[in-house]
Amino acid sequence: MSNPTRQATAANKPGRPAAATAAFGRPLQGWRLRAYTIIFEADTRAGRRFDLALIVAVLLSLALVMLESVASFREAHKTWLSWAEYAFTALFTAEYLLRLICVRRPLAYATSFFGIVDLLAVLPIYLAFFFPDLYALVDVRVLRLLRVFRILKLNNYVAAYLSLGRALRASASKILVFLSAVLMIVLIMGTVMYVVEGPENGFTSIPVSVYWAISTVTTVGFGDITPKTDLGRAIASLMMLLGWGVLAVPTGIMTAEMAAQRIGETASPTTRSCHACLREGLQADSHFCRHCGAPLPEYQRD
Amino acid sequence: MSNPTRQATAANKPGRPAAATAAFGRPLQGWRLRAYTIIFEADTRAGRRFDLALIVAVLLSLALVMLESVASFREAHKTWLSWAEYAFTALFTAEYLLRLICVRRPLAYATSFFGIVDLLAVLPIYLAFFFPDLYALVDVRVLRLLRVFRILKLNNYVAAYLSLGRALRASASKILVFLSAVLMIVLIMGTVMYVVEGPENGFTSIPVSVYWAISTVTTVGFGDITPKTDLGRAIASLMMLLGWGVLAVPTGIMTAEMAAQRIGETASPTTRSCHACLREGLQADSHFCRHCGAPLPEYQRD
Amino acid sequence: MSNPTRQATAANKPGRPAAATAAFGRPLQGWRLRAYTIIFEADTRAGRRFDLALIVAVLLSLALVMLESVASFREAHKTWLSWAEYAFTALFTAEYLLRLICVRRPLAYATSFFGIVDLLAVLPIYLAFFFPDLYALVDVRVLRLLRVFRILKLNNYVAAYLSLGRALRASASKILVFLSAVLMIVLIMGTVMYVVEGPENGFTSIPVSVYWAISTVTTVGFGDITPKTDLGRAIASLMMLLGWGVLAVPTGIMTAEMAAQRIGETASPTTRSCHACLREGLQADSHFCRHCGAPLPEYQRD
Amino acid sequence: MSNPTRQATAANKPGRPAAATAAFGRPLQGWRLRAYTIIFEADTRAGRRFDLALIVAVLLSLALVMLESVASFREAHKTWLSWAEYAFTALFTAEYLLRLICVRRPLAYATSFFGIVDLLAVLPIYLAFFFPDLYALVDVRVLRLLRVFRILKLNNYVAAYLSLGRALRASASKILVFLSAVLMIVLIMGTVMYVVEGPENGFTSIPVSVYWAISTVTTVGFGDITPKTDLGRAIASLMMLLGWGVLAVPTGIMTAEMAAQRIGETASPTTRSCHACLREGLQADSHFCRHCGAPLPEYQRD
Repeated sequence: MSNPTRQATAANKPGRPAAATAAFGRPLQGWRLRAYTIIFEADTRAGRRFDLALIVAVLLSLALVMLESVASFREAHKTWLSWAEYAFTALFTAEYLLRLICVRRPLAYATSFFGIVDLLAVLPIYLAFFFPDLYALVDVRVLRLLRVFRILKLNNYVAAYLSLGRALRASASKILVFLSAVLMIVLIMGTVMYVVEGPENGFTSIPVSVYWAISTVTTVGFGDITPKTDLGRAIASLMMLLGWGVLAVPTGIMTAEMAAQRIGETASPTTRSCHACLREGLQADSHFCRHCGAPLPEYQRD
Repeated sequence: MSNPTRQATAANKPGRPAAATAAFGRPLQGWRLRAYTIIFEADTRAGRRFDLALIVAVLLSLALVMLESVASFREAHKTWLSWAEYAFTALFTAEYLLRLICVRRPLAYATSFFGIVDLLAVLPIYLAFFFPDLYALVDVRVLRLLRVFRILKLNNYVAAYLSLGRALRASASKILVFLSAVLMIVLIMGTVMYVVEGPENGFTSIPVSVYWAISTVTTVGFGDITPKTDLGRAIASLMMLLGWGVLAVPTGIMTAEMAAQRIGETASPTTRSCHACLREGLQADSHFCRHCGAPLPEYQRD
Repeated sequence: MSNPTRQATAANKPGRPAAATAAFGRPLQGWRLRAYTIIFEADTRAGRRFDLALIVAVLLSLALVMLESVASFREAHKTWLSWAEYAFTALFTAEYLLRLICVRRPLAYATSFFGIVDLLAVLPIYLAFFFPDLYALVDVRVLRLLRVFRILKLNNYVAAYLSLGRALRASASKILVFLSAVLMIVLIMGTVMYVVEGPENGFTSIPVSVYWAISTVTTVGFGDITPKTDLGRAIASLMMLLGWGVLAVPTGIMTAEMAAQRIGETASPTTRSCHACLREGLQADSHFCRHCGAPLPEYQRD
Repeated sequence: MSNPTRQATAANKPGRPAAATAAFGRPLQGWRLRAYTIIFEADTRAGRRFDLALIVAVLLSLALVMLESVASFREAHKTWLSWAEYAFTALFTAEYLLRLICVRRPLAYATSFFGIVDLLAVLPIYLAFFFPDLYALVDVRVLRLLRVFRILKLNNYVAAYLSLGRALRASASKILVFLSAVLMIVLIMGTVMYVVEGPENGFTSIPVSVYWAISTVTTVGFGDITPKTDLGRAIASLMMLLGWGVLAVPTGIMTAEMAAQRIGETASPTTRSCHACLREGLQADSHFCRHCGAPLPEYQRD
């Protein structure tokens, strides 16, 4: 399976110190190297096929979990649902163990982002033996689909995903400032509404009022709790305008500025208006209206 | 009141043809000129005081109309409310007539934007004699407050207001294309939901379904009508993602692009990964992992 | 009807191989050419009038379908509604057949975008013979109005429409990354809420919970399903902030950056503050406060 | 505690006029200087520890207030809740008095932004003796956390906070114009809906209708009040499209423009189309379709 000439890698060169082995684990060879290439990388045809099969398996198991939660479906298909569950459980558990085996340092894999994702993909099934309600959390395995970008060999997808992550980290401080301000406003406004409206109007405690405040400022507006007093509705109006205004004011202003640059306009600062056509903004020293030509009286001002 | 030397304007110069008078109306002199300056312009102290008094009057009358609509308030203050109504009616009617008089061409004023606004400010009161329900439309007189920008003598406010108007006209074609697309989508989706959900689920007719579709795509989500069937909810989910996505996709992408430019990043298009630290994106010709230094086997690919 | 000199087109030149005829169908001449010009193009007066009549017909038939769905209207106007239906059906069917006839390759037309739109404009009527409920889908014919841009001979509308389409294709990869992330988040959060709230609180299955999650993240917030438990409301609050934050954070940050550039400001990184006026951000080497002039003690720090 | 050589500050130099003392209060020395450094500044280790302890205290007291409002929690922990309240009250009151003492001009501190925030942090507790309902307003002390940015010694946070404030002031005029327009629209539309729908449909007065109008234009959509008449729903649809469109139109257009620049496209203004492949936008002088090569008849137009 493995070509002898391929074996002449950096790992096997004479003189390679044993420290490398100690630091990085046994070098990959033979079937372990082959397994690693297929499972972890996607630049070989076998690797791509594996990823494709994995995606299909993940999607199928997700559909299974979602349909199982629908009571009518669960009743109608009781028999084969359990078998399908066991099948997928066995499949993903075997795959996870195989990953641990064919990596040089299993602990590094198990603590990496994808390692944790892969563990969370199988864990809920076992937790469900003790806490049956948690079975649905198997849906977390959808995060495994983050690998799907590789198989499509679309580099710009990968670049887009990485750049989005870095973009967030670069602006982290600004985002934190912004969100802190929002949280403070929401806490204070929620408390004010709790005082103004009170538990008899649905605002049963401060946490509940803060939940309402968040639903109002983010313009979601469930409507399960609504202000009934006039003062409460006035405060709610302010919060709604704030939450929407944070979005609307910048976009509206930016559009106006862009268009203004395109037209290259200059402001007309006087209120002098023509008696005939009533157009405003005439120059202070005009003798005739520049729009309609009417003769103008001398400009009065003090 | 009027200075003889001021009278030597372009309108009165010898040789000024009578055509000007015919075309533009009698030239303003004496008390008409003074009234015009005070009422229509705001660069004199008297003009500014007039505008201020006007704003106060408009705001007071608005507050009056709004409070009158509250049944409890109406009951408690029946007596003086009628008198206040009559007072404001007389005031604004007198002002409107004065405007007509002191302008060179009353018809031009009556058909201008502000002329129509001023007329709509008094008209509902008279209409209410025949249609009492329409009295509340007196609130339209809030548009008179568009004049408030002048009295504050803040030129950038005037410029901002004018530039916003021009910005809209410049992009008119793009806005129309966008809104047409939205209307088509909303009509088709509303019809589909009408067919899928049907009148028994609240979608009583196509116009009502279109109203629901608009409330969903614009992310308002009143909740007075909601889909009950699975297919209906699936379609609703698509529409919600569309309506929100139109806002979220551009803003999210623009942020990522801006940050990407700031970092100046280059994509790493391979999926080659290190067996030890599991970092992806290694160069195809690496012998050692550039993150952790582990020696790498030869890169497998086909 | 056709001018003999006009006939001397490329299609009729001597030496033109029969291959063209085989590949593209019989060249258009005579009444077929005239029909094609009127129906498919809009640069002749007849062509524009045809498009105008078409738009009016489409709008009228749409209004008819919408009004028919209103039960009260249907009852009141039963008689002429059926006749109007038949009339429009005949009209649009005849027009579709005419289009097929006067085109060189009918199959190319039938499979093009507008060809499918035109087919969908008449098909529901015939489907309604078998499935009466589908009649309302006649509204799909509103897509025919996409042709309306041509008759107004407004080239910038056409350009805007085309550029919008191309813009979407250019950013397709980024949009896909973004939407994938949203779908994963919505699936996981929906499942978590299903586990936390459970069917007794309205979250009857995972698909329903995902529908709720979408309505929350997209800030629509119907309110037909709402969390009742404290943990559920906390998770809902996070989702609302996420959905709104995706819009608010970029717009808010971009505004701050634009304004910061305009002011050209530099940060003051110390917390040194003046004992008298309490202004922060004094330089470490100041002896006097630069705001109020108070003498300062030596700066304490370690 | 204080080093004699450190005492040789600008404040103590010989020849320093007594005017400085009169104008700025007694210069800080000894324990007052030390207290000031710890409490007001955060560049010493003691100063940072103080700020950290303060943040923890504020967060704990906030959690306490929030949990107290939950009836079940209040019942279960009645005993120690009162003691905790008194403890925090004493703590923050003592801290406020200490601040007043160790500042050169106590009045300047009491009237500064942070001074007022610190006062509002303790005041509600004392007001609650007279108005028990106001106790919850203790939550206002969350504003004290605005100081948290200093302890993290993250200068870009400080810069971000300051720049956000300045950004708002720079665009103040534009924001005011925008918000004025929104308020006018909301008042008029609210009044129209009051006239159209009337109190029997939930629109009990003009203020309530304006509250509904705000919830619609800001796309919050609580759903506690909804239009029932056809005309009312039509007007509501317009308002929803307006409120969402203000956000969607600029973002959508900006994206299209950015992408258009990237592609560098030129519009094709004719509607000339190929008979064979049906592609539009052919040049007026083409003899062959540039997409499929079909020979074209001469272009008909008038």
